[in-house]
Amino acid sequence: MAGKDRFVNQIADINTDYTQWYTDVCLKSELCDYGPVKGTMVFRPYGYAIWERIQAEADRRFKAHGVVNAYFPMLIPQSFLMREAEHVEGFAPEVATVTHVGNTELGEKLVLRPTSETIIGNMYSKWIDSYRDLPLKLNQWANVVRWEKTTRPFLRTSEFLWQEGHTVFATPEEANGDALEMLEVYREIARDVLALPVLTGKKSEKEKFAGAVATYGMEAMMKDGKSLQSGTTHYLGDNFAKAFDIKFLDKDGTHKYVFQASWGISTRLIGAIIMAHGDERGLCLPPPVAPYQAVIIPIGATKNPAVGEAAEKLKTELLAAGLRITLDDRDQSPGFKFNHWELRGVPLRVELGGRDLEAGVVTVCRRDTGEKFTLPFDGLAPRIAALLDEITVHMYDKAKAHTDSHIVPVSSLDEMGTALDGGNFCDAYWCGDRACEDAIKEKFAATSRVMHEDQSQAGKHKCVCCGKKAKHRIYFARAY
Amino acid sequence: MAGKDRFVNQIADINTDYTQWYTDVCLKSELCDYGPVKGTMVFRPYGYAIWERIQAEADRRFKAHGVVNAYFPMLIPQSFLMREAEHVEGFAPEVATVTHVGNTELGEKLVLRPTSETIIGNMYSKWIDSYRDLPLKLNQWANVVRWEKTTRPFLRTSEFLWQEGHTVFATPEEANGDALEMLEVYREIARDVLALPVLTGKKSEKEKFAGAVATYGMEAMMKDGKSLQSGTTHYLGDNFAKAFDIKFLDKDGTHKYVFQASWGISTRLIGAIIMAHGDERGLCLPPPVAPYQAVIIPIGATKNPAVGEAAEKLKTELLAAGLRITLDDRDQSPGFKFNHWELRGVPLRVELGGRDLEAGVVTVCRRDTGEKFTLPFDGLAPRIAALLDEITVHMYDKAKAHTDSHIVPVSSLDEMGTALDGGNFCDAYWCGDRACEDAIKEKFAATSRVMHEDQSQAGKHKCVCCGKKAKHRIYFARAY
Repeated sequence: MAGKDRFVNQIADINTDYTQWYTDVCLKSELCDYGPVKGTMVFRPYGYAIWERIQAEADRRFKAHGVVNAYFPMLIPQSFLMREAEHVEGFAPEVATVTHVGNTELGEKLVLRPTSETIIGNMYSKWIDSYRDLPLKLNQWANVVRWEKTTRPFLRTSEFLWQEGHTVFATPEEANGDALEMLEVYREIARDVLALPVLTGKKSEKEKFAGAVATYGMEAMMKDGKSLQSGTTHYLGDNFAKAFDIKFLDKDGTHKYVFQASWGISTRLIGAIIMAHGDERGLCLPPPVAPYQAVIIPIGATKNPAVGEAAEKLKTELLAAGLRITLDDRDQSPGFKFNHWELRGVPLRVELGGRDLEAGVVTVCRRDTGEKFTLPFDGLAPRIAALLDEITVHMYDKAKAHTDSHIVPVSSLDEMGTALDGGNFCDAYWCGDRACEDAIKEKFAATSRVMHEDQSQAGKHKCVCCGKKAKHRIYFARAY
Repeated sequence: MAGKDRFVNQIADINTDYTQWYTDVCLKSELCDYGPVKGTMVFRPYGYAIWERIQAEADRRFKAHGVVNAYFPMLIPQSFLMREAEHVEGFAPEVATVTHVGNTELGEKLVLRPTSETIIGNMYSKWIDSYRDLPLKLNQWANVVRWEKTTRPFLRTSEFLWQEGHTVFATPEEANGDALEMLEVYREIARDVLALPVLTGKKSEKEKFAGAVATYGMEAMMKDGKSLQSGTTHYLGDNFAKAFDIKFLDKDGTHKYVFQASWGISTRLIGAIIMAHGDERGLCLPPPVAPYQAVIIPIGATKNPAVGEAAEKLKTELLAAGLRITLDDRDQSPGFKFNHWELRGVPLRVELGGRDLEAGVVTVCRRDTGEKFTLPFDGLAPRIAALLDEITVHMYDKAKAHTDSHIVPVSSLDEMGTALDGGNFCDAYWCGDRACEDAIKEKFAATSRVMHEDQSQAGKHKCVCCGKKAKHRIYFARAY
C-alpha cells in the first residue's frame, strides 16, 4: 500500500513539463477524475470541498451586495437562443441539444443552458412591471454545458459548475456600474479567498461575451506566464431587453426597456489555484479554501500512547476553534504522510512526537515556504489561526511578485514574441482594430486580455502590430 | 399597486378547492413560477431560500454522519442505463436524450441523469481497490431530469433539485444498515426542520426503486389526507456492483463485490411544507426553513419618526442575534402588509406603533395560531428565539395530531373506500401479492405506502383485498 501510494505521489517536473505536472496534480491529489464521456470530469470530494469553500465565500459577498439566489430550468427552447443575434452565433456551435424523451421526439428542440440570459430574460419579462420592481438582482448556482473540442480538468470541460448573476436596472449607468462593482467583488474574492492577484479591465470587442455591449474580465497569471480568465462581468445594455421584451413603467408614465448586467465565476478558479500556487511537490492551497487547513501527524504513537492522546486532544481543540483539521493516525511512516499531505497542499503540518510532548511543543511546517519551527502546545489554536492568515498574505504577495515581474512593456512584434516565449504578459499599445488582434493570434497564439488600468498615454503611442496611432493600452498574453 | 396586490393575494378556498389553493399559494406567494417548457418550473428567490435552508440543515447532518460531497457528470452514456435490467425498465421511458452538439450527431447518445447510480457505479469501480477504501460515503447536490406526463410545481416537474447519497460497504448488513440509518436522519430532518411528522418503513416490491433490493420510504400526510413520498433510501445489494464490476480485495485475500445503498430527498419537500402546514390564509412556514422568521411592521411611522427609528433598532438587534428578519417599511397600509406576509407564511409578525413605543412593548402575532400578545421591547431577541422554537414544536404537534386522527384501520375494501374518500390513510393487512395492490389501485387510485412499524400480528389477519392469509401490515393511501 505504501509502495503503491509512493508511486501514486510521483508527479511530473513542474519546470520541464508543466502540462503533465498539472494533470498529475489534478489526478494524484484526488481533486478530480475523468468522466466516462470525453470532455467530462468528476469532482472528487477533495476538489469539491474547495468549490464548497469558494461558494460559501462568494455567496456571502453577493448577498451583502443585495443579491438573492434563484434557480431557472436547465433546458432552454432552441428558439430562445436565436433571439439575440450575436448570442446565438457565439453559443450555437457548442450547445448540446435534447431531441427525444424516451422514444418520443420533442415538438421543439431544447438546449442545455450554456448560460442563462435567454431563459432568465423570458421570466424577467413576466415579472417586471414597474420601476418599483427595479433593481432586480438574482444569482443562480448551476451546472452549464458547453461542448468544447479541447478539454482539461477544471479549465475547460463540457459541463462545469458556476454562478451566474443576472441584474436588471432602469438606466444604462446603473447596469454598467453593476458590472464594474461585481468585477471588484470578484477581485476581492481572488485576493482574500484564493490569494490570487488579478488584472482587471475591459475586454476587446473580439473577446467580449456574445450578446454584451461590454465585457470586463479578471485575468490571473499562471506560473508558466500564461493567463487564465478567472471571472467576467458583462454590461448587456438593452440587448436582451429588446430580444425578450423586458419593459417597465417608469415614474414618468412611459414604458421603457430595462438595462442589464450579468457576471460569473466558475470551477475554473480551482485550476487557477493549482497553477498559480502549485510547486514541484504538488498543490499549495490558500488557507481560506483548503479543505484541511492543518494536518496533525503523531510521530511514534504506536510506542508512546501519550503521543496519540495528545494528538487527539490537539485536534479537538483546533476543531473547536473553527479550524478545518485532519489527524493522520494511519499506520504509515511519517515520510509517507508528509508526501501525501504536501501533494494535497495542506497549508500547515503539525508534527507531534515524544520529544515534542516532553518539551511541551509541537513542530509546525509551512507548506508555502517549507519553514519548520516549534510552537508551544498550550494555546496553539490562536497561533495556528494567525499563521494561516499570514500564509494567505504571503501566498498573495509571492504570486503578485511573480505577476509583476512577468509583465513586459513591448513596442514591436519582435519584442512581443520574445516576451511571450519568456513566459510573460505583454504591456502593449494597440490601434483597436480586430485585424491586428487576429494577426497577433495567428503569429504568436496570443490574445488581448484586458485593457490596462492607465489609458492616459495611449494616444501618444503606436500600435504594436500595425504601427498606426494607438487607441488603447492593453495586455496581450497566451491564455488557457 | 395596493389594489393590484390585494387581488394578487386572493387564493382559492383550501376547503373547497385544495388543488387550486395549492397552485395559488405557490404562485402568489412568489415561491415559484412556470418555466417556458411544459413541465418545468422556476424557483423564485422566496422558494429557493427555503431550499437553501433545507440544504444547509441536511448537509450538516450528512457530514456528521461521515458523508462527503462530490459532483458527477449530468450526461450519462445511454449504455450505462442498460446494464441493470430493472433500472433501465424503470427509467427509460422518462429520460431525456442528447443526440446532437451544434450540428454534429454524437457517437453515443447521452441521457440526462434521472438518478446517478450508474455513472457513480462506473467511477466506484475505478476508485475502489481494497477493504481499506470502504466504507465510502459520497453525496451530491444536483439537478435531475425525469420527464413526467402530469406535472405540478415542486411535486413533479421534469427537472428538480435534490441530493443523492451513494454509499459502499463490504457487507450486505452494513449497506442495508446505512439505508435504515439515513431513513432515521431523514425522519429527524422532517421533524426538526420541517415540523413534519412522517411514517417510515419498507416499501412493497411494486413501489421500490428500479434496481434496489429494498426501498424504505418516509410518507407525510397532507391536509387533504393524501400521502406525499418525502424521501427514500435504498438497499441496492450487489446489483450495481455486478453491473459495473465494483469489487474490493478483502482481508482474506479474495476479490468480492461491494454492497451499496443510495438515498435522496428533493425540492418536493417544499411541496410537503406547503400542503401539510398551509391554511386559508396561505403558507405557514416552520421557523427553521422560513426565509424570514419575523417581519417587523411599523405602524404610523410617517407621522411618528420615533416609530421608524425603533423599528430599525429592533431589526438590527434581532439580526445580530442570528435571526432572519425583514422590516416592511413600504408606503402601504398595515392591513395590506399583514395580508402580504401572512400569505408568505412568516412565522411571527412584530407590530410597532406609537402606543407600543410609549408602553415599551411590541405587539407580536403568531402565524400558526393567530394569537396576538405584547412583549417588552427590551431584550426581545431571546424571547423571539424561544417563541420560534415553540412554534416549530406546535406546528409538528398539530400536524401529528392531524395525521394520527386520519389513520383508519380497515378490514375490507368497502371500509377502505370509505376511509380514503374521507381523507384518511388505511392501516391494512395484505397478503403481499402484487395482484391485490393492482386491484386496489384500479378500484380506489390508492397505493401501498410503507409497512407498518408493528408487524407482530400480521400473520393472524386476512388480506384486505383477497381475504387470504396476510403477510404484512401496511399503509394504503392516495398519494401525490
